[in-house]
Amino acid sequence: MNVPTIDDVRAAAKRIEGIAVRTPLLRNDVLDEMTGAKIWVKAECLQRGGAFKMRGATNAIAALAPDVRARGVIAFSSGNHAIAVATAARLFGVKATIVMPSDAPRIKLETTRANGASVVTYDRVNESREAIGAKLAAESGASLIKPFDDPYVIAGQGTAGLEIAEVVSPDIVFVPASGGGLAAGTALALPEARLVAVEPEGHDDIARTLALGAIQRNAPGIRSICDGLLTEQMGELPYAIAQRRFERVVVVSDAAALRAMKLAFERLKLVLEPSGAAALAALLKGDVDVRGRSIAVIASGGNVDAETFARALAA
Amino acid sequence: MNVPTIDDVRAAAKRIEGIAVRTPLLRNDVLDEMTGAKIWVKAECLQRGGAFKMRGATNAIAALAPDVRARGVIAFSSGNHAIAVATAARLFGVKATIVMPSDAPRIKLETTRANGASVVTYDRVNESREAIGAKLAAESGASLIKPFDDPYVIAGQGTAGLEIAEVVSPDIVFVPASGGGLAAGTALALPEARLVAVEPEGHDDIARTLALGAIQRNAPGIRSICDGLLTEQMGELPYAIAQRRFERVVVVSDAAALRAMKLAFERLKLVLEPSGAAALAALLKGDVDVRGRSIAVIASGGNVDAETFARALAA
Repeated sequence: MNVPTIDDVRAAAKRIEGIAVRTPLLRNDVLDEMTGAKIWVKAECLQRGGAFKMRGATNAIAALAPDVRARGVIAFSSGNHAIAVATAARLFGVKATIVMPSDAPRIKLETTRANGASVVTYDRVNESREAIGAKLAAESGASLIKPFDDPYVIAGQGTAGLEIAEVVSPDIVFVPASGGGLAAGTALALPEARLVAVEPEGHDDIARTLALGAIQRNAPGIRSICDGLLTEQMGELPYAIAQRRFERVVVVSDAAALRAMKLAFERLKLVLEPSGAAALAALLKGDVDVRGRSIAVIASGGNVDAETFARALAA
Repeated sequence: MNVPTIDDVRAAAKRIEGIAVRTPLLRNDVLDEMTGAKIWVKAECLQRGGAFKMRGATNAIAALAPDVRARGVIAFSSGNHAIAVATAARLFGVKATIVMPSDAPRIKLETTRANGASVVTYDRVNESREAIGAKLAAESGASLIKPFDDPYVIAGQGTAGLEIAEVVSPDIVFVPASGGGLAAGTALALPEARLVAVEPEGHDDIARTLALGAIQRNAPGIRSICDGLLTEQMGELPYAIAQRRFERVVVVSDAAALRAMKLAFERLKLVLEPSGAAALAALLKGDVDVRGRSIAVIASGGNVDAETFARALAA
């Protein structure tokens, strides 16, 4: 097992420069007043492809040997990793095949196709995306770009944390976690920060994993409005980092995620998807005492259907 | 008449540093493909107070002599200038009194009050905000911060253009215009760019003003969803700059503004108010040939009610 380090994150930052974009780190008076802290929101919804996933996908594809890369890439993903791999592959001029659940949000299916990828859909309940992905990779010689259990992907996601560190040294950073790639990468990039991982209520495998000291799974079929945070279990590489660095886990309800989306609409003028608003929801939940601290919150993505967003506005 | 110059804009940039924020200039693949141009979106909705107005208000208040400033400030505004003056006054620790139409969007009334300002409402049809503002100023000794016909306000708004110039030298810049402060300031800051002013359909006084060579008015009572672009006539100082620098005017319909808001939601992940989406709507209207050019579009604000935003999502 090749657990990445901050040097890998620094190397990733060089590799993705000019492809993934540097997103703004936003300050907001109202959030400061609500929390009594100094809040910095890393607006990854403004990332190319609408989510942080572009960082890891770009780093992983950039790191492939050119002859390997030329045979194309494959990914399986509920959404944002799919868009990211499709977009990065297009920019590198190689073919992408994406295995997506048939019930993925429409905007994510459409955006993946709009980036020129071939989309293969599967039934989330009865089929294994891993098996489908492995079969396609064997047939085509394409490289599988895993969504989180890959040192290059973790290091790529961590570049969001490096960009935070250029502006502020946060005492605490709130990061959504499911596979754990973004949270692990952020932990590497911000070695002095206390890391709060955020997951959906009822889908709290990371909380249980850290409590029990072994990777736990979620029961199949549990749903949450946070469609980007529904991985069955966290990755082994993220877990290796999480054991040392995730200080605690906060779970957020669907209602809290929707309220955070509305707050982002009203006060930050950002469009966040439910998963993208999860860290903000966790901050506002108040489980973690943040008063007087510098806080970074990763608003991880903004790929949300109009219907879901309208639901948040009505919350 | 004291028409500001690019040196005044540079001086404003120094004066507002650390109070108004530097907003990001966003690139987007989809917009480039739709237009055949290279599009840069200046996200002023991410400005403090949710709109560019913070720039001009901060510059004007910062430029007051300390003893004058201590007597407080007054403004009359349909919304974003009100929020900006209230916020800037709060940051300078002085009292603000804001004269607002009683039918201003709720979010703008609330945000102004939330910043500690005293709000005086008036009837847009039967009362004169200028008369009310002048009376209040005479009574209190407070300084009237005009929304656009003030060299400091124009120079302040122009700092958005200076920030664009640090990243790209656009061939064309699309800017919403009503009083004309932002468009005039942007023209000063980007002397090489062709400036396209954007106004609501049916409220095209600037188009008529430039065609006839004298300031024209809008008939009273004309409404548009672009509530930030309903000034009765443009200012004299903006007009002096517009005569030399506004190359053309594009008018946009309510429907086009709503569609642009939806596109910003889907592709840019930004919350724009109708007036804030007007320049994007004008770009997409296609009246101006932009193919192969570098284009800057000022997305001027994001203070929009949930109801109006839901209308855009349903467009």
